[in-house]
Amino acid sequence: MKGKLITFEGGEGSGKSTHVKLYTEYLDKKGIDYLFLREPGGTNISEKIRSLILDVKNNEMSDHAEALLYASARAQLITEKVIPALDSGKLVIIDRYIDSSFAYQGYARGLGVDYIKKINSFAIENCKPDATVFLNISPAQAFERKGGADKDDRLELSGIEFHQKVYDGYIKLIEEEPERFIVVDPSGTKESTHEKIVNALEKVIR
Amino acid sequence: MKGKLITFEGGEGSGKSTHVKLYTEYLDKKGIDYLFLREPGGTNISEKIRSLILDVKNNEMSDHAEALLYASARAQLITEKVIPALDSGKLVIIDRYIDSSFAYQGYARGLGVDYIKKINSFAIENCKPDATVFLNISPAQAFERKGGADKDDRLELSGIEFHQKVYDGYIKLIEEEPERFIVVDPSGTKESTHEKIVNALEKVIR
Repeated sequence: MKGKLITFEGGEGSGKSTHVKLYTEYLDKKGIDYLFLREPGGTNISEKIRSLILDVKNNEMSDHAEALLYASARAQLITEKVIPALDSGKLVIIDRYIDSSFAYQGYARGLGVDYIKKINSFAIENCKPDATVFLNISPAQAFERKGGADKDDRLELSGIEFHQKVYDGYIKLIEEEPERFIVVDPSGTKESTHEKIVNALEKVIR
Repeated sequence: MKGKLITFEGGEGSGKSTHVKLYTEYLDKKGIDYLFLREPGGTNISEKIRSLILDVKNNEMSDHAEALLYASARAQLITEKVIPALDSGKLVIIDRYIDSSFAYQGYARGLGVDYIKKINSFAIENCKPDATVFLNISPAQAFERKGGADKDDRLELSGIEFHQKVYDGYIKLIEEEPERFIVVDPSGTKESTHEKIVNALEKVIR
């Protein structure tokens, strides 16, 4: 494969979506060709699977069934979009990828990393990211930054414990593969964080 | 777990659906309590996944995505229906189960048995069948028995090669676990085949 795969990861309120958008705008400005995708989703079938996962009517969904649906949507995305784009030499940017499954399902939901590895073996064997940007802000900080007042927010107090597990999971993943992760502190201004991301990815996209 | 899990397997035209129906009618007559399920399906979420798999509009579905959807529907079925029923001591009968994934996706579609084992590890570790009835008729025989005239049938000539791979896959599974499989020749009358199944399962359900 000639193209490169860059993924963005981070917890709720980390600013991940803002920064992936700023980065693709930077690529546009530089005239660098890329394919942007999000998970779960990015193909007709994967978006149908996304609807199944997110539909509140399906709240009896088991953790294992959910993890397998994420893996299925990912397998379809890889076959239909990611591999053809990489084969044609294109840069591929994905908002959330397999590390989200490790952090959310493997660690926070307690299914274990080994199980997530097994069910995502197709992704692991065929499409490993060349670099992964992780926006490193603890759930407590992210919560504080938001003002801490919004009790309807997903980061409301009752959820902090879950999001702390997600965060701890990401930290373990980074410790295992420090060479793949680009850990960015987003506590400064939006502009300075964006600049850090641009600089760190420069050697990956060239 | 106190209950028993019996699965029925076989290729297209093997008479599997007929015989699983005759067997549940036998259990009704004998007053034996059981839960009957089919795959993929059997829960609200699993039936939604079934619709995704079977919808002809989704014909770009990759083999890996398909196999993961089957595994997801199965995981949901196990958590929501099979384990609670077995825990309460009930007999559970399922029309197709993990062996269908081995034969159809693992062997015939060429994904390999190891891959199917990985993605179905939740089923393998938590809900292994106590006995599996396999209706042993080759695709050529099944096709001949149907008259061989129906060119719109899924067993039309162009599909024979695929169904032969499915059959060969089942035979390999039986060779690996002869103690679990009850191999029944369905070439005689419907009544004699039914009697063979009833007699073979007698020691399992008691």
